[in-house]
Amino acid sequence: MASKLQGIFTPNLVPLDSGGQINEAELRRYIDWLIAKGVHGLYPNGSTGEFTRFTAEERRRIIRIVCDQARGRVPVLAGAAEANVKETVAACEAYYEFGARAVAIVSPFYYRLSPDSVYAYFREIALNSPIDVTLYNIPMFASPIDVPTIRRLAEFPRVVGIKDSSGDVAFMLRMMAAVQPIRPDFSFLTGWEAVLVPMLIMGVDGGTNATSGIVPEVTRKMWDLTKAGQLDQARAIQLRLLELFDTMLYSADFPDGFRAAAQLRGFDFGRGRQPISESQRIDLDALQSVLQCILADWGYVDAPQEGCAIRTGNIQRDRVAQVAEAVMQQLRQKGVL
Amino acid sequence: MASKLQGIFTPNLVPLDSGGQINEAELRRYIDWLIAKGVHGLYPNGSTGEFTRFTAEERRRIIRIVCDQARGRVPVLAGAAEANVKETVAACEAYYEFGARAVAIVSPFYYRLSPDSVYAYFREIALNSPIDVTLYNIPMFASPIDVPTIRRLAEFPRVVGIKDSSGDVAFMLRMMAAVQPIRPDFSFLTGWEAVLVPMLIMGVDGGTNATSGIVPEVTRKMWDLTKAGQLDQARAIQLRLLELFDTMLYSADFPDGFRAAAQLRGFDFGRGRQPISESQRIDLDALQSVLQCILADWGYVDAPQEGCAIRTGNIQRDRVAQVAEAVMQQLRQKGVL
Amino acid sequence: MASKLQGIFTPNLVPLDSGGQINEAELRRYIDWLIAKGVHGLYPNGSTGEFTRFTAEERRRIIRIVCDQARGRVPVLAGAAEANVKETVAACEAYYEFGARAVAIVSPFYYRLSPDSVYAYFREIALNSPIDVTLYNIPMFASPIDVPTIRRLAEFPRVVGIKDSSGDVAFMLRMMAAVQPIRPDFSFLTGWEAVLVPMLIMGVDGGTNATSGIVPEVTRKMWDLTKAGQLDQARAIQLRLLELFDTMLYSADFPDGFRAAAQLRGFDFGRGRQPISESQRIDLDALQSVLQCILADWGYVDAPQEGCAIRTGNIQRDRVAQVAEAVMQQLRQKGVL
Amino acid sequence: MASKLQGIFTPNLVPLDSGGQINEAELRRYIDWLIAKGVHGLYPNGSTGEFTRFTAEERRRIIRIVCDQARGRVPVLAGAAEANVKETVAACEAYYEFGARAVAIVSPFYYRLSPDSVYAYFREIALNSPIDVTLYNIPMFASPIDVPTIRRLAEFPRVVGIKDSSGDVAFMLRMMAAVQPIRPDFSFLTGWEAVLVPMLIMGVDGGTNATSGIVPEVTRKMWDLTKAGQLDQARAIQLRLLELFDTMLYSADFPDGFRAAAQLRGFDFGRGRQPISESQRIDLDALQSVLQCILADWGYVDAPQEGCAIRTGNIQRDRVAQVAEAVMQQLRQKGVL
Repeated sequence: MASKLQGIFTPNLVPLDSGGQINEAELRRYIDWLIAKGVHGLYPNGSTGEFTRFTAEERRRIIRIVCDQARGRVPVLAGAAEANVKETVAACEAYYEFGARAVAIVSPFYYRLSPDSVYAYFREIALNSPIDVTLYNIPMFASPIDVPTIRRLAEFPRVVGIKDSSGDVAFMLRMMAAVQPIRPDFSFLTGWEAVLVPMLIMGVDGGTNATSGIVPEVTRKMWDLTKAGQLDQARAIQLRLLELFDTMLYSADFPDGFRAAAQLRGFDFGRGRQPISESQRIDLDALQSVLQCILADWGYVDAPQEGCAIRTGNIQRDRVAQVAEAVMQQLRQKGVL
Repeated sequence: MASKLQGIFTPNLVPLDSGGQINEAELRRYIDWLIAKGVHGLYPNGSTGEFTRFTAEERRRIIRIVCDQARGRVPVLAGAAEANVKETVAACEAYYEFGARAVAIVSPFYYRLSPDSVYAYFREIALNSPIDVTLYNIPMFASPIDVPTIRRLAEFPRVVGIKDSSGDVAFMLRMMAAVQPIRPDFSFLTGWEAVLVPMLIMGVDGGTNATSGIVPEVTRKMWDLTKAGQLDQARAIQLRLLELFDTMLYSADFPDGFRAAAQLRGFDFGRGRQPISESQRIDLDALQSVLQCILADWGYVDAPQEGCAIRTGNIQRDRVAQVAEAVMQQLRQKGVL
Repeated sequence: MASKLQGIFTPNLVPLDSGGQINEAELRRYIDWLIAKGVHGLYPNGSTGEFTRFTAEERRRIIRIVCDQARGRVPVLAGAAEANVKETVAACEAYYEFGARAVAIVSPFYYRLSPDSVYAYFREIALNSPIDVTLYNIPMFASPIDVPTIRRLAEFPRVVGIKDSSGDVAFMLRMMAAVQPIRPDFSFLTGWEAVLVPMLIMGVDGGTNATSGIVPEVTRKMWDLTKAGQLDQARAIQLRLLELFDTMLYSADFPDGFRAAAQLRGFDFGRGRQPISESQRIDLDALQSVLQCILADWGYVDAPQEGCAIRTGNIQRDRVAQVAEAVMQQLRQKGVL
Repeated sequence: MASKLQGIFTPNLVPLDSGGQINEAELRRYIDWLIAKGVHGLYPNGSTGEFTRFTAEERRRIIRIVCDQARGRVPVLAGAAEANVKETVAACEAYYEFGARAVAIVSPFYYRLSPDSVYAYFREIALNSPIDVTLYNIPMFASPIDVPTIRRLAEFPRVVGIKDSSGDVAFMLRMMAAVQPIRPDFSFLTGWEAVLVPMLIMGVDGGTNATSGIVPEVTRKMWDLTKAGQLDQARAIQLRLLELFDTMLYSADFPDGFRAAAQLRGFDFGRGRQPISESQRIDLDALQSVLQCILADWGYVDAPQEGCAIRTGNIQRDRVAQVAEAVMQQLRQKGVL
């Protein structure tokens, strides 16, 4: 029997070349780097991986590349949601062949389905998938999966865990209280690194955290310290991480802030597929300066030549101040000011 | 220059065969019926048409069939949203070739985009589409398109209208106030038939209304009466229509209530692609009895043999009572009670 | 039997003196002016009247003044919500003595109550109030009153109408469809002037509209034109009114934008009781310049000496531009720039 | 200088007599019991205490009784929100005289204020209150207090803490990250016992938890175990507590579920002031049976004579099943079935 899903899985951003196509070489290089930095697993075709912006063919190609490059060094959790149940099951079959450890399937989106429909959808998959299935709950983007539905779905052996991106600790505890009595092997993974340490302390099995694609060293340390019972240090890192996480998450449309930060770690991610306006381009360049300052403080990159504004600890205010300053600098360089 | 988009467009449900594949013959027969009943246009690949549950290839096939069958008798507004801008523009090109009058493109969904990103997305399409573009705003399912963004997008000649499914009359008036001064030719279509008459009276150009796929006679009459200034009669039909609309909309996950009703008009729509549970199946059968009673009152179908419960005019209460009665009947037939 | 509540009722702002106390003389002068300008009724202690910011004693005093000053020239609809049912019924008794035509009672707020609790609350009042009761639905601030609950409450003769501030036309139609068959005398009033004309065309009996406290001439004209069937002119005013309404509503915390505008009509409303920051004070001064420009265009006040920026019809953008300009001007006057 | 606010404060329910008046004797007896059971403080006039349903005079009387009965054995945190700033400051002065340790002031409610207005409101209080002030953030009922506003308000020495009832652990961590660098003495209290243990582990100073008014022994144990570093046992109690908390919170309009449970501990709380319907009365009686079963399992009360249904751990389903069973039983007793 396969071992329980646990640890920090990285939801992979996909590097694109100048023509907007998948940059396979860079993706492979990025995967090697992540594994070297200590992530416990990979999670391609998640929300961070912008799965909805690729075609069905491209989604398969991404999984094939990631599984191939991982070569069993770490498990791959493959996002497998397609247009309908039949297509999704076909993706499950393909990813099973590719060697993924399990699939993660987001609840149906666009339409907001009732709990009964969400159940019926996953039931069909649980009965037909040849590979272990992880439910993926992300209520801000897709139909919510509520506790009674999760409990019912946990009765299918093929369903081995849930990845929850609500960030709601109470909801996680409710799921654990409902499911653990009947499925002690069920995995609980959080997609919200703002509460990674408290989640781990309360007993979740790990996380799928976009931040681990930027600073895999940090999320790994949060895991290691928590597991070792060094809670004071884990707490301190958790509090400190909020600045970086919030800046990446709230300063641009998701996942552009994460892409901008990943770029700073030495990878060429190219431009995302969602077009952006000229003013957004300027904002993103400015954001990258801010992120460089934050990452420089952590010691992972050099500070920008022009130096960094003082950050006061008030994340929101600092971000605004820094972005404003960086925008001004850009405008100066372009001769507008 | 093409004429302004106006009138009642039917967002086409897609009949499926017993294997879950597109039932082309039935789709063609349904289109002929709709045209014969007086709809002003067809709107395949909309939310009612469950565009997200078909593959990219199937979406093209649907448009091809509809355009071919319409044979220019009524204009076709083709839903053209695909995974990303490049794919969407390719769909626009294809639908232009198929003879569609215009495309309707829903704002990006899954991710909730900022107004700037929504603008950048549609700008790219407006610059590259060979066919007229209608914006599609449906904030309950997709990123909202706000008034300033609509105003900016109205500066592109290729953007010829907006289809709004928010149902918010004030929002519609705000759009009209912002856009009409610079684009008198811009079309405003409402996707919310609960307010079709007040919208028409206030000057919108038409609607894309799922209800017109069930009772095209009624929506056509609402149009004709309003145009003729017979407001008292239009109002009366509007108030009366709420019972049918609300029952189809709120008694099952969208668009299953509409499919159940369309079935009663003599077409074999088959089962939807979203799986449903056994209890949902029973509910849907019960719902169909209720809908049959409502449609019988309008005179479009025969009442069910077992008769109809009295409806009090309190829509919600009546619906519950009727569904309950119908469920009981089903259970009795199956010997459970 | 009392006649049906109909027409445009003004939700009265309360002028305060420099000590923050009720400015009775100015309130009386304002009431006379409103009546002279043609409002059909007065509505003190509503949301616009900031009823929550006065003490129980002050609320009574406001009603006493308004009833006394109206002297039967127009009916008074008195906001009567107090801390609990017993206190609310006591207020109903008092307002009955003062000569109010009816009371308007907002659904319980702070706690979000279930429909059953909302029903039980109003039932108790309906059974004990000596004065006609109007339900007040304002879901953005208080527990929503849903259609089945309204229907049930309409069975009490003492409940004579509903004032709905949701702005949702479909909801209004649903209420009418549910209640009119059993209570043809029931009054439907809208509190959302952004849709006043379509509401009136669809058959509501009137409105309680804060805007009527600023430009009573305009809301009266919307009423008169609609009643006279001059829909094209009514529509044109409706579209034009959005700029003023949106600017008052969205440019400051409610109801400060309305107070700033009312001030321009020649009344000294003083400062509101909710403290504001220095930067808000500057914003409000700037907003007043913008409002003066809009009201000058309508012909109700003189344009500001320094002139007005061109408005493009894009309400949001114009508002920002104008506020920015006015702030700059303020800063210049203060020597900051 | 006063010591930091910490520990578990009980938001006091107020017992009412058969006439709906404050039952002072029972309130005093309840306070003694709570103190004897180990609560660290008392918190009258909070949301649990239904402060909005009492008159201004009654609110003062409640604080006077609680302070008098506590007699310095435990600190009193007095809810002091009144109709406006002037009235609120007057309440602060009164509660200072009564001997309260601090006041807790909910953000303005009914109107949803902007952050600037929230700041201006608390600033005024901070400058004029003679007693320490705790901010009270409860976004589901009142204007939210965001992190930058809390940070700004923490600059006033008179503001000594925040009580947050959002239940959002990430938000709590953001506040701590923003405020602790400038105010190490600032108290963070959580009002959401579904996450009490993770909050305490992450460093909050305590909680104001309605559940502590029902099972003060349990919340005290959660505090003691966490402080002692016995996290496995604390976690286990946290998970187990969810059933009781959720049942009290979600089975009736707040705080009726808590009142029903408190009744079972041997106090006569009477009926709440918010009227309830006959069917709600039956539901509440049924709920009390369920709560008795849960509390019996904890060992705090005897099981009901008629026995208890098996609970499966699926809280929602069990609650429904139990309520259904209890309703049936009631109906049987009344001869309806």
